[in-house]
Amino acid sequence: MKTNPGNFFEDFTVGQVIDHATPRTITEGDRALYGAIYPTRFAVPSSAELAASVGLAPHPVEELVGFHVAFGKTVPDVSLNAVANLGYAECRFHVPVVPGDTLRTRSEVIGLKENSNGRTGVVWVRSTATNQRGEAAIEWARWVMVHKRSADSPAPATVVPDLAPAVDATDLVVPAGLDLSAYDDVAAGSPHRLGDYEVGERIDHVDGVTLTDAEHMMATRLWQNTAKVHFNTDARPDGRRLVYGGHVISLARALSFNGLANAQLIAAINAGAHVAPAFADDTVHAWSEVLDTATLDAPGVGALRLRLVATRGRDESMTLRSDDGKYADGVLLDLDYWALIPR
Amino acid sequence: MKTNPGNFFEDFTVGQVIDHATPRTITEGDRALYGAIYPTRFAVPSSAELAASVGLAPHPVEELVGFHVAFGKTVPDVSLNAVANLGYAECRFHVPVVPGDTLRTRSEVIGLKENSNGRTGVVWVRSTATNQRGEAAIEWARWVMVHKRSADSPAPATVVPDLAPAVDATDLVVPAGLDLSAYDDVAAGSPHRLGDYEVGERIDHVDGVTLTDAEHMMATRLWQNTAKVHFNTDARPDGRRLVYGGHVISLARALSFNGLANAQLIAAINAGAHVAPAFADDTVHAWSEVLDTATLDAPGVGALRLRLVATRGRDESMTLRSDDGKYADGVLLDLDYWALIPR
Amino acid sequence: MKTNPGNFFEDFTVGQVIDHATPRTITEGDRALYGAIYPTRFAVPSSAELAASVGLAPHPVEELVGFHVAFGKTVPDVSLNAVANLGYAECRFHVPVVPGDTLRTRSEVIGLKENSNGRTGVVWVRSTATNQRGEAAIEWARWVMVHKRSADSPAPATVVPDLAPAVDATDLVVPAGLDLSAYDDVAAGSPHRLGDYEVGERIDHVDGVTLTDAEHMMATRLWQNTAKVHFNTDARPDGRRLVYGGHVISLARALSFNGLANAQLIAAINAGAHVAPAFADDTVHAWSEVLDTATLDAPGVGALRLRLVATRGRDESMTLRSDDGKYADGVLLDLDYWALIPR
Repeated sequence: MKTNPGNFFEDFTVGQVIDHATPRTITEGDRALYGAIYPTRFAVPSSAELAASVGLAPHPVEELVGFHVAFGKTVPDVSLNAVANLGYAECRFHVPVVPGDTLRTRSEVIGLKENSNGRTGVVWVRSTATNQRGEAAIEWARWVMVHKRSADSPAPATVVPDLAPAVDATDLVVPAGLDLSAYDDVAAGSPHRLGDYEVGERIDHVDGVTLTDAEHMMATRLWQNTAKVHFNTDARPDGRRLVYGGHVISLARALSFNGLANAQLIAAINAGAHVAPAFADDTVHAWSEVLDTATLDAPGVGALRLRLVATRGRDESMTLRSDDGKYADGVLLDLDYWALIPR
Repeated sequence: MKTNPGNFFEDFTVGQVIDHATPRTITEGDRALYGAIYPTRFAVPSSAELAASVGLAPHPVEELVGFHVAFGKTVPDVSLNAVANLGYAECRFHVPVVPGDTLRTRSEVIGLKENSNGRTGVVWVRSTATNQRGEAAIEWARWVMVHKRSADSPAPATVVPDLAPAVDATDLVVPAGLDLSAYDDVAAGSPHRLGDYEVGERIDHVDGVTLTDAEHMMATRLWQNTAKVHFNTDARPDGRRLVYGGHVISLARALSFNGLANAQLIAAINAGAHVAPAFADDTVHAWSEVLDTATLDAPGVGALRLRLVATRGRDESMTLRSDDGKYADGVLLDLDYWALIPR
Repeated sequence: MKTNPGNFFEDFTVGQVIDHATPRTITEGDRALYGAIYPTRFAVPSSAELAASVGLAPHPVEELVGFHVAFGKTVPDVSLNAVANLGYAECRFHVPVVPGDTLRTRSEVIGLKENSNGRTGVVWVRSTATNQRGEAAIEWARWVMVHKRSADSPAPATVVPDLAPAVDATDLVVPAGLDLSAYDDVAAGSPHRLGDYEVGERIDHVDGVTLTDAEHMMATRLWQNTAKVHFNTDARPDGRRLVYGGHVISLARALSFNGLANAQLIAAINAGAHVAPAFADDTVHAWSEVLDTATLDAPGVGALRLRLVATRGRDESMTLRSDDGKYADGVLLDLDYWALIPR
């Protein structure tokens, strides 16, 4: 068979290395489309001039552009037969991605655990995106629940990797040359710097965006993510196209500009859960909670650890969990990440 | 509060200067998206080769790309709490915008007038977009009706600026180096030059485009215009997303190619009224009336002053006003502008 | 009249040459939009690095980007009043199109035949797209059925051109410098090379995409194709926007990656029929049949002649024709082309 059936649980072994197709060159067209699809206004990726003024030239694209492209490559090999994306961990952005860079992704299987039902299992992979100079640009771990080809296949030895609950602030990578000591708050759109945020503070990002099928499909294709549930109304019993989880991440991150305009660069993703599926006609809102703050060893650079929550409809109460400890109705995404911000 | 509540009428004072966030770099991605969203075929912005042959290299994007980006920056500060965009005046394009340029916008409040109801007021601003060399690229005045924070606030002294009903032809700026003396009519798609148009002549542009939500949202985000009514079905009682007025301007301008293919460059916008709102599923048509003609002091360059009218549904009768002097049903836009055209 | 009424059958004469408006410069924005609208993953157009490794630098865009742009220019002059696009033949890609290239298109009328009803006729044209260096980049013949202005007009002498049923493998143009001898199968996403495909073999490309109006309009505008049936719900009695046939070609070609990932470059289009119209909400699938194979005179380069069939809904039986010899229900496109593939 010449078409790709995807891998089933039996096809993975701990230590296995997969070089994913296909390398992809990032262009200014990607930046423009990202800005057309998400309401992003962060000044560093918006302005080459402002980026250069803080030491970033050539002009990086948003970290999530690189992440989605790098992630998309893993889908045909890792999650084409996935039942669910279960989580992310230890995602760090090592080198900014700039137009002209070509990204490749390689994954290593770092964990396997068959589920007690005998029909599915959990696969952990650590993936690394490298640029054309062979530099690791982005790395992350994720785990997915995958169908077994046959319930009769024997279970492999269980290996559950030891993943950090969060990237330690001392392990955050500051892009080479970044200097926020002469940062222009007015141009960036907010006077609020590191010291203005307190742990526990919650910010309702106010704005909302109603989803359309055309837009999420265009975004998802841009990342060469081929999972059919995003594109084909025949692929699900309800005839609806499931929105790629990364689309909700980018949308919520863009909405967070209103309240976090100076949280310019994503340095790490600590954890993430796609709590509920999103569909066209859902109106997505977002709120953030400050989980931690840190001062980094680069001029003027601090970091905020943020919980970013996307919801269906606006929730001004910013309720993450209901009384029974489960996620509250309407929560779509619970993302934990570190952003760089001027001190 | 870290989120932007926008300014209310009380927040403006005559003489106040606002530096708007966020600077934005124009790219070839913007040109491509503009061409995907609007049916534009004007040869100068379409072809780098043809642009260079008339003295414009590097290759400018359409004037409205720069305008929308520059305008979008003013929205969070000027019109987030606007009831209505009331008008434009004295808009001139000084320096072509080319990929790689970074635009910033600064506005000065030039007029204030509280309405007799005590709940709203009119704010006039003059805005200037500058490029990374500090050159004024685009300037314009506009006025908007804005909510007061409180009906109890005292009214400011009324200042109504003296705005010209139209930019005088002698004040039009011809881009440095523009030479239309060897202009290629065949490549441009029309033999009709300045002398072929008569004052009073009306042109039905024939073609129509049915609007979709995905397209107008993508355009509006590209300009970093954040007014929620364009994106969020919860933001209006009727659950419909209001199409950004500039979207209708660009759509009508693109449709005007069919009849005005040689009106290559917009030099000035004299006045503009968004007569009625547009929504997805509306089919937009356009017609133009020649208001004036001029010969400019540059080789081969003339100018047409045009009224560009966008309508819901095609109106072959090209009726602007009904018997009672109001705009005729179906009129969406009444725009008065100067375009450069070969003589 | 200053607007374009299009040409009617009476306006064409054999030997007539038409220089089409408007020249258009290809950019990285076009590549990004192509990737957002079609689920393409072919490694050569995806990766500048991989393209350079096989001798193609600067980085070509997909052949269909150039084809659609070049084709779109012919629409206002050739097919604005077309009843139907009847066929393609002898389409060859001579020189890769790269960002920065400006394409112009010229057509020559090579055949005319009035239909027996006296109201329509068939026009054959041969079109050539040239780049800014004057090199022929793409050439093709097509024929369309066009309305007569008047049934009373006398019929011209019938001239039916002699068009080859397929481009001979010995006439295929291999891009200068192409060397597939060190081709990277893993990066490209498939181990299957020329020798792995057998004449008669059929491949079901599995994946499907449900069409939206926003996406096909954006694509069609990008090619500056102005036929109103694609954009305007008032243009057809059923109120539906007809999807541009080329949109289905690009969609099917992109879907064919799954099974033909190494068929990297289109070298020729031998024939093509738009069998049935496509509309928003149709889910398009594709299958291919290997019609021929060839070894070409360039290092590591072979060619596959492929029938690419797009269908509404998936047809795992891959049935082209029903018992009565007509196309089977659901067939949208029947395209015959040559692709270059590593041996």
